[in-house]
Amino acid sequence: MAALRARTVLLTGSNRGLGLELVRQLLGGPRPPAWIFATCRDPEGPRAQVSARLPLPPAPAEANVADPTAITNAVKIVEAKLSGTGLNLLINNAGIYAPVTLDTVDSEEMIRAYKTNAVGPLLMAQAFLPLLKKAARESTDKGLSCSKAAIVNISTVMGSIERTAESFFKPVISYRCSKAALNMLTKCQALTYGETGILCVALHPGWVKTDMVSVCGYCPADLTVDTSVRGMLSILPILSEKHSGSLLNWEGKVIPW
Amino acid sequence: MAALRARTVLLTGSNRGLGLELVRQLLGGPRPPAWIFATCRDPEGPRAQVSARLPLPPAPAEANVADPTAITNAVKIVEAKLSGTGLNLLINNAGIYAPVTLDTVDSEEMIRAYKTNAVGPLLMAQAFLPLLKKAARESTDKGLSCSKAAIVNISTVMGSIERTAESFFKPVISYRCSKAALNMLTKCQALTYGETGILCVALHPGWVKTDMVSVCGYCPADLTVDTSVRGMLSILPILSEKHSGSLLNWEGKVIPW
Ligand SMILES: NC(=O)c1ccc[n+]([C@@H]2O[C@H](COP(=O)([O-])OP(=O)(O)OC[C@H]3O[C@@H](n4cnc5c(N)ncnc54)[C@H](OP(=O)(O)O)[C@@H]3O)[C@@H](O)[C@H]2O)c1
Ligand SMILES: NC(=O)c1ccc[n+]([C@@H]2O[C@H](COP(=O)([O-])OP(=O)(O)OC[C@H]3O[C@@H](n4cnc5c(N)ncnc54)[C@H](OP(=O)(O)O)[C@@H]3O)[C@@H](O)[C@H]2O)c1
Repeated sequence: MAALRARTVLLTGSNRGLGLELVRQLLGGPRPPAWIFATCRDPEGPRAQVSARLPLPPAPAEANVADPTAITNAVKIVEAKLSGTGLNLLINNAGIYAPVTLDTVDSEEMIRAYKTNAVGPLLMAQAFLPLLKKAARESTDKGLSCSKAAIVNISTVMGSIERTAESFFKPVISYRCSKAALNMLTKCQALTYGETGILCVALHPGWVKTDMVSVCGYCPADLTVDTSVRGMLSILPILSEKHSGSLLNWEGKVIPW
Repeated sequence: MAALRARTVLLTGSNRGLGLELVRQLLGGPRPPAWIFATCRDPEGPRAQVSARLPLPPAPAEANVADPTAITNAVKIVEAKLSGTGLNLLINNAGIYAPVTLDTVDSEEMIRAYKTNAVGPLLMAQAFLPLLKKAARESTDKGLSCSKAAIVNISTVMGSIERTAESFFKPVISYRCSKAALNMLTKCQALTYGETGILCVALHPGWVKTDMVSVCGYCPADLTVDTSVRGMLSILPILSEKHSGSLLNWEGKVIPW
């Protein structure tokens, strides 16, 4: 199987859950990146300790994706460390989830989820675009690939309007609406950034046992973080033009919008 | 052709564009509703004059869909006028549109569009739900219909992720993301409210010559408001369970998500 050859990777929400496991497996892989920017929103907080204990090249940088100023600051730090080279892979993994129904959701919760799950990935891509473009220009690879330059938005099957009925025992309205918007964003990014050599894709990690899914009562999660992340990292190297602008699951199967 | 038999209708954004024409044609139809609540966000403003000149049963009420308090106030006014009867049809028509690209859009514009185009329709439906349920209970009709109780969200083909490429000469990122979220909301509303007898559908009015489409340079609008509204009003009476939770165009054709 092809291995991911991204030299530089940046992740959001890397202090726990899927983000932390992505960092672990990227570091332990056959060709670990030279730089992994394992960002989180509170690098000094108790939850960040987990990733601070990993032998990361740089210290985990701060990137609160709901805060445009924090994102701008993160770019400066990353730019300084990369000293003139580009960023191959941006993984927008940070996300929030609240157990609200159409009865209980309010305007504030709708906006909160949208800011983190849809606007955050948009701002991250805007801010890191010059570094992603640089990586695309530096590469001699033809076509699009995650080893060259890519934006991976961690989305969910719960953002699939077509498949809403099958998981509606968890209505999570604010989450579903924000992730449907993230899917639309991914399509727009693919159409906008494709010509500069950047692949853009949305990934559903499966239903995975993390803090997120235990938030609301009955939990249908059947995957471990290990299996989900192993799956996602094995499909990244095989993605090309034809996948850009789609929503795929952790096994590489296309999910309808 | 079946005629719409809704006795009571409420619309948002009814002071100009498609909203105003919907009011005009509803009033001029073969069975005009007993009550049309033609709401707009500024009933005293210069733009509201247009609808104030129509011979409406009630004076146009205020409903700024981006303001939860204004919505609560609108419910009180409508409830008082209906004196104990229900609301058959809620048309969430108000919407905003800005000519932004992935380069130029910012967090504020993303939130602004989401508040009006997705959160507004959600709050309107929440607030008017007791009146919609009342209308469903009052009706002796079997199944779901727009004459009994319905929420019609005016969406757009630009909210279809599947069909993004064909109109991407207008990127309008904040609009597309907010309308994809509105489509997801419509599906969630159909799944939640269907069992209480309320039909929920999203409609694409076509590309229509209104202020909205003239906002950004090249305008592909080919329909007049008259044709678009005539089309939408002719399909409302034929909608049933099988259409609830879908996105249809002004001619009744299903648009993929
Ligand atoms: N688990 C599943 O079954 C599942 C299924 C489908 C999709 N997903 C998606 O997978 C991604 C990761 O989820 P997970 O299951 O690993 O969830 P998780 O265990 O709850 O972790 C969420 C991560 O996002 C971070 N985060 C939240 N808001 C942030 C912000 N404003 N700025 C920066 N970081 C922020 C959290 O940081 P803090 O520690 O600071 O809160 C945490 O690191 C999410 O996008 C989620 O929607 C998960
Ligand atoms: N025209 C098209 O080709 C087209 C295509 C697809 C979908 N649509 C959809 O059709 C609907 C109507 O659009 P249109 O073409 O008639 O646009 P328009 O002429 O620009 O009218 C928009 C209407 O929405 C109202 N509005 C905006 N923000 C509001 C708020 N916060 N509260 C209450 N009302 C608000 C406006 O009121 P003010 O006068 O106070 O601004 C106005 O009445 C929109 O949802 C739009 O997305 C239109």
